[in-house]
Amino acid sequence: MLEELKAKVCKANLLLKEYNLVLHTWGNVSERDKETGYIVIKPSGVAYENMKPSDMVVVDIDGNIIEGNLKPSSDTKTHLEIYKKFNNINGVAHTHSLYATSWAQSGADVIPLGTTHADYFYGSIKCTRALTKEEVNGDYEKNTGLVITEYIDDPKAVPGILVFNHGPFTWGSDSIDAAKNASYLEYVCNLAYNTININSKVERISQSILDKHYFRKHGPNAYYGQKD
Amino acid sequence: MLEELKAKVCKANLLLKEYNLVLHTWGNVSERDKETGYIVIKPSGVAYENMKPSDMVVVDIDGNIIEGNLKPSSDTKTHLEIYKKFNNINGVAHTHSLYATSWAQSGADVIPLGTTHADYFYGSIKCTRALTKEEVNGDYEKNTGLVITEYIDDPKAVPGILVFNHGPFTWGSDSIDAAKNASYLEYVCNLAYNTININSKVERISQSILDKHYFRKHGPNAYYGQKD
Amino acid sequence: MLEELKAKVCKANLLLKEYNLVLHTWGNVSERDKETGYIVIKPSGVAYENMKPSDMVVVDIDGNIIEGNLKPSSDTKTHLEIYKKFNNINGVAHTHSLYATSWAQSGADVIPLGTTHADYFYGSIKCTRALTKEEVNGDYEKNTGLVITEYIDDPKAVPGILVFNHGPFTWGSDSIDAAKNASYLEYVCNLAYNTININSKVERISQSILDKHYFRKHGPNAYYGQKD
Amino acid sequence: MLEELKAKVCKANLLLKEYNLVLHTWGNVSERDKETGYIVIKPSGVAYENMKPSDMVVVDIDGNIIEGNLKPSSDTKTHLEIYKKFNNINGVAHTHSLYATSWAQSGADVIPLGTTHADYFYGSIKCTRALTKEEVNGDYEKNTGLVITEYIDDPKAVPGILVFNHGPFTWGSDSIDAAKNASYLEYVCNLAYNTININSKVERISQSILDKHYFRKHGPNAYYGQKD
Repeated sequence: MLEELKAKVCKANLLLKEYNLVLHTWGNVSERDKETGYIVIKPSGVAYENMKPSDMVVVDIDGNIIEGNLKPSSDTKTHLEIYKKFNNINGVAHTHSLYATSWAQSGADVIPLGTTHADYFYGSIKCTRALTKEEVNGDYEKNTGLVITEYIDDPKAVPGILVFNHGPFTWGSDSIDAAKNASYLEYVCNLAYNTININSKVERISQSILDKHYFRKHGPNAYYGQKD
Repeated sequence: MLEELKAKVCKANLLLKEYNLVLHTWGNVSERDKETGYIVIKPSGVAYENMKPSDMVVVDIDGNIIEGNLKPSSDTKTHLEIYKKFNNINGVAHTHSLYATSWAQSGADVIPLGTTHADYFYGSIKCTRALTKEEVNGDYEKNTGLVITEYIDDPKAVPGILVFNHGPFTWGSDSIDAAKNASYLEYVCNLAYNTININSKVERISQSILDKHYFRKHGPNAYYGQKD
Repeated sequence: MLEELKAKVCKANLLLKEYNLVLHTWGNVSERDKETGYIVIKPSGVAYENMKPSDMVVVDIDGNIIEGNLKPSSDTKTHLEIYKKFNNINGVAHTHSLYATSWAQSGADVIPLGTTHADYFYGSIKCTRALTKEEVNGDYEKNTGLVITEYIDDPKAVPGILVFNHGPFTWGSDSIDAAKNASYLEYVCNLAYNTININSKVERISQSILDKHYFRKHGPNAYYGQKD
Repeated sequence: MLEELKAKVCKANLLLKEYNLVLHTWGNVSERDKETGYIVIKPSGVAYENMKPSDMVVVDIDGNIIEGNLKPSSDTKTHLEIYKKFNNINGVAHTHSLYATSWAQSGADVIPLGTTHADYFYGSIKCTRALTKEEVNGDYEKNTGLVITEYIDDPKAVPGILVFNHGPFTWGSDSIDAAKNASYLEYVCNLAYNTININSKVERISQSILDKHYFRKHGPNAYYGQKD
């Protein structure tokens, strides 16, 4: 079932490798099928080199395996909480990419420092609070998802977050979009890292520049790119 | 029309990818045709992978599309202001390359710290002021170009600038030259980043070294490279 | 003899190159044959480009060459001390990878700052004391191994160490495992480097997160990856 | 003439590219022919992509062109001063590699911080004084060579130097050796950069470790690598 979606999710996972966001078997991308509500996700701990569409696992919104010979990503429950909360999000990606993970480890939000940030993220990329001991010892991956959703007002406006001590999660309209947002987030975090190492007192960009660049690429008045 | 120039501008855009200055569809290079005064520029938001000469867009100096099936780069008006102001500049490039953009985000000029800088940029690479709210909300891309031209005395002497909060623009005698200058600028910004992280009190090189290296490569007494 | 193991150890050495952990002829990986107790190790100062299984050298636990036309790695005695002390360790790797070596040069332990660390290293990655003048002037490589073993309580829990002023050694159940741990260590050191350059006051992650992530991947209750 | 040496010097120049030490047409390597005393050097400003042995230029010790259709490297006179001063040096390389040049711009010596340094450089890698205005305005490239030679006691012991505000020069027994030393120098400078950004108070390694590692690889008692 969902063969076409499996091919697409497989491709989205391979984008993580192409964008240089993952080593070894790290990272995972999923997409929700709009018709069935099922989620197609990367299997746990499988090498990218030989990954193929038929390796993808289909689960329902409660995490029950609907189809697949392999175990789904150990982060599946985190993805599911994001899908449960937001009907307009149908793709989720997770990596341990270098700069985004470094910011997540540092505990700091990434405030908008330039137009590259504003082109994709309409405001600060937040770093979550730490999970409590109870949250960690309980249903950890589900609780990670719940903590993420605490911080999101409008998931389309800022399509990514840094889980404190862990790393980035991004999302989007589909799996390809989520994977691309993982790449934008990594680059924005790299720029922010460099910027504070040049000028530790650097300040947030103006609201007008943030508006201008974000809405140049997003929403009804966007004028970047080709219409199709 | 201008088929030869389209091929050249396409190649110059692909140089940005080859020089590792752009991700995804970012960046753009243009060139002005000396005979017609028309500008050939990359289309907006198109992937580098399949870019071909016929995708290039021909616009006049006021930004009217003369030929092309695609929308020109959203930064076209910024390029045009540079061409309008400087008759001796016939190529412009824009990237969000990592170190140049980081300096642009930091708000600091890149002062000459070594001979690599002096080989290509005869003085500081300036970082512009922020655009005012009115400039941002008005004709933003045109105003970006106007702010750039405020800072340029001799465009041949320092063929690049950092737009505050945004990123680098470079230029040159043609599109290939502008793309090469984007590469030199990125490397010089990377060196400067490293240098201040070794020695935060580092000082500008002497005028004699700046003169020596710049004029070794540029002008009537240049003796670097082959005569041809 | 041990032709299969030679092929495996050769492959493990080539992984160091694939993981971008070595330049030139640097680095070495070995594995102990469980049956004979012999160690198969990379020859000293040989290029990776043309390395083949028959180049591997077989030594006994005292370093006597059992088979091989080439001299074994100059670090062989360091490997042997690790094997002597720990029966459950059958693979050892050594590199001068960039970030791990930088931490080794700095003299600082790498404390757990995130889940990437916790996924592979159950606690701080220790940086050893300096060898004494006598240790250096005596049987240096053997003494390096002895200093390493001073710092290891449970070699499976934290499968790597930083030798002060020198660089990382990692180990594992076999040579492939040791090479993979060298890659994880390098990435964790890179993350830690970036993290302290964002937030110099960053603190160790909680014991509960360390437990959760480490035991998610290791031990009887691990649930990451596929069962096979 | 010297066709074999031209092929070797061409190959040594291409090593700079392979080792990722040069962009565009930057960098140059030369070798002195022991019999004739002539120097074979890369032509000025020529792309690496199509470089071939017949492009190499033969000059005498005073810089007169003995054979070749192209102009020799603009840094030729710097190479010549090194050859004039040291009979045991027959290869010289110059790059603007990232970390070595950053240290050269910072004005600081690179003190030995680890065994990777000690494996190749027996002591600090010195950063020269600035050239005086007179030296710059006079025979600049020759004076650069003279300033380099001021700082070298034993060119074999520390086969490289950082010219203040400029970048690294390395040397060796032949052109291949000089190119390899350029690669070792870059890596050592990268390690030192990272190390001081972890621990700004890091101290020089002990003399015994410096002795041990340097003489493990060099001199009559070396035991690294294979005998051939």
